[in-house]
Amino acid sequence: MENFTVTPWEVNGSVDYDKLIKQFGTTRIDEKLRERMKKTCGDLHPMLKRDFVFSHRDLGAVLDDYEKGSGFFLYTGRGPSKSMHIGHIVPLLFTKWLQDKFKVNLYIEITDDEKFLYRKEYEWKDVQATAQQNILDIIAVGFDPERTFIFKDSEYVKNVYPLLMKTARKITASTVKAVFGFNDSTNIGLSFYPAYQVIPTFFEKKRCLIPAAIDQDPYWRVQRDVAEGLGYYKTAAIHTKFLPPLQGVSGKMSSSGGAETAILLTDDEKTVKNKINKYAFSGGQPTVEEHRRLGGNTDIDVPYQWLSILFEPDDLKLKKIQEDYRGGKLLTGEMKMLLIDKINTFLKEHHEKRKKAEKEIDKFMYTGSLAKTMWGKIHE
Amino acid sequence: MENFTVTPWEVNGSVDYDKLIKQFGTTRIDEKLRERMKKTCGDLHPMLKRDFVFSHRDLGAVLDDYEKGSGFFLYTGRGPSKSMHIGHIVPLLFTKWLQDKFKVNLYIEITDDEKFLYRKEYEWKDVQATAQQNILDIIAVGFDPERTFIFKDSEYVKNVYPLLMKTARKITASTVKAVFGFNDSTNIGLSFYPAYQVIPTFFEKKRCLIPAAIDQDPYWRVQRDVAEGLGYYKTAAIHTKFLPPLQGVSGKMSSSGGAETAILLTDDEKTVKNKINKYAFSGGQPTVEEHRRLGGNTDIDVPYQWLSILFEPDDLKLKKIQEDYRGGKLLTGEMKMLLIDKINTFLKEHHEKRKKAEKEIDKFMYTGSLAKTMWGKIHE
Repeated sequence: MENFTVTPWEVNGSVDYDKLIKQFGTTRIDEKLRERMKKTCGDLHPMLKRDFVFSHRDLGAVLDDYEKGSGFFLYTGRGPSKSMHIGHIVPLLFTKWLQDKFKVNLYIEITDDEKFLYRKEYEWKDVQATAQQNILDIIAVGFDPERTFIFKDSEYVKNVYPLLMKTARKITASTVKAVFGFNDSTNIGLSFYPAYQVIPTFFEKKRCLIPAAIDQDPYWRVQRDVAEGLGYYKTAAIHTKFLPPLQGVSGKMSSSGGAETAILLTDDEKTVKNKINKYAFSGGQPTVEEHRRLGGNTDIDVPYQWLSILFEPDDLKLKKIQEDYRGGKLLTGEMKMLLIDKINTFLKEHHEKRKKAEKEIDKFMYTGSLAKTMWGKIHE
Repeated sequence: MENFTVTPWEVNGSVDYDKLIKQFGTTRIDEKLRERMKKTCGDLHPMLKRDFVFSHRDLGAVLDDYEKGSGFFLYTGRGPSKSMHIGHIVPLLFTKWLQDKFKVNLYIEITDDEKFLYRKEYEWKDVQATAQQNILDIIAVGFDPERTFIFKDSEYVKNVYPLLMKTARKITASTVKAVFGFNDSTNIGLSFYPAYQVIPTFFEKKRCLIPAAIDQDPYWRVQRDVAEGLGYYKTAAIHTKFLPPLQGVSGKMSSSGGAETAILLTDDEKTVKNKINKYAFSGGQPTVEEHRRLGGNTDIDVPYQWLSILFEPDDLKLKKIQEDYRGGKLLTGEMKMLLIDKINTFLKEHHEKRKKAEKEIDKFMYTGSLAKTMWGKIHE
């Protein structure tokens, strides 16, 4: 029997996603829904096609609203972390695809408060510096600057405060204890915080769709309990799995877990090459001879998994890689080289876009069309 | 055996102030400290002289700081209530005296958030309207507009947010449960709120002195637990008793308790007269004959108590009233007339000052010297 834990702060063990769906009470994205998405969007994002985006709440209702013309909006977020890694950017890439397809507003909450409250050792000013760096990485993903509002909780709090109070008044201590595992030693900031993460789902009187990793779902459960009582929609959500860490296909990548688990967005070509060659868990055989004879196992091969989730959108090419590896034709070192090239190409582009992002920060946060509208609002 | 309850939200029964001092761990203001105040201030406010201002924390240290020239500042607050009554204004009058004597900055927190969070039936917009009305009554007390900053929690939250997070991170759920009697059914807004009430004690890197009724002291206990860990002073406090409600010298006046308990700041002359004559609990005898023979009891006579606490600053006059009443020379109706005249004179002046206050709101909240400085600050 396998054990695993998934909370907004911790992902451990080999996650059984079917069990998780049951545990969280979400719904699998089935073939029918996938087909509907394809029909609406023209094509399917590889993450959706390949079951990395695997679960949802009310996605059907979102598509209904879209078709009826009442529309919807997107919301996702980010807890500032010192070094963003490849895993962090995965839901953002999918979010960008959704924005491109549906041309809708997107709100990105930078949860500087939560990060600070959760980590006793963090200094406020460090979290702020980190947030600023993370925002550059987010902008580099390529969202629409006129339809995207990126805000830090600490900066935008005055604009949401009435709504925050209304929401907090509807959530009891027992709820956050049950949902998040808080207890009486939890600080009062952290146990209050879930109210804030709920707020952006109320930014428009339309249905909200949240693309995020499944570990954030407990917040949406709380949201769905209080939303209608406040005159808003229950939020919809679309969940990704976790990009496996370098050292094996269980748990979640972590930037604090050391060099052996993650590729950081700041890593240079040489670092990427070294990390993948040294740490990426391989599904290949111990010797070339055995590999040629028995073939590798793509199910547990981290380089293959990363190609599948993120770096090889071409289905035919991916299929060939899989067959060659399983058939012993493609060696472990070669599989790793494929990935290294892909990652380095991706990071090179990312670094360029990130440089340009410095000039775009103001648009996303203050002066763009959506941002400007948002700063003029007090949400009640 | 008498039972009584004193919390920030409830005062019931006949309060034994000596027991309360023990229970809260505060210190009685003794003759020596009173003398020192007199020496420093030139005279003593009647509330201080007559033991209505009766307890403190670190008042001696405040006077030390003042004498050394390092100074201190004042902080008090108000939870918006539909109709402010005479009892609400009592600590404010004493606060004004302190500001006049020491020429120090004063911060007045309008806790619109707390009021809303505590009362499930309140609408946000109603609390806002009420807050605006209360602010006029506060300004009418006559504070120094260049040295006083009045702010609503909801409006100033962005400026305090980093400090609020730092403070909240140091307070656990068990602490607020123990101190305020919260439990798991308490909403997460209310259990977070104590962090905000602590914040103004950190507005300057000087000692803070809080003049307030003793029911607010639990907040200062929490403050004193966390202050030094955050690099600030433990706050000092100076506590008033409760102005007795009309119907008898126990409990606390309440505007929601009905016409028979309180004189509202908006009451007109006739209403005051009717309320006092009809509801003010008298320590006199049932008949004029008995009263002439046995005399009245000023200890339980509400009109006398009000004169003593608030409306007859002249010691000689008050002494004469007491002697005449106890000796049966002054009748109950006459005592009540004395009070009615005093209250109506006070309210007439108050209504005039309140009218002028409308023009001063901006100064106290945004444009006065202290207010302006405060809006330019983010407290970290």
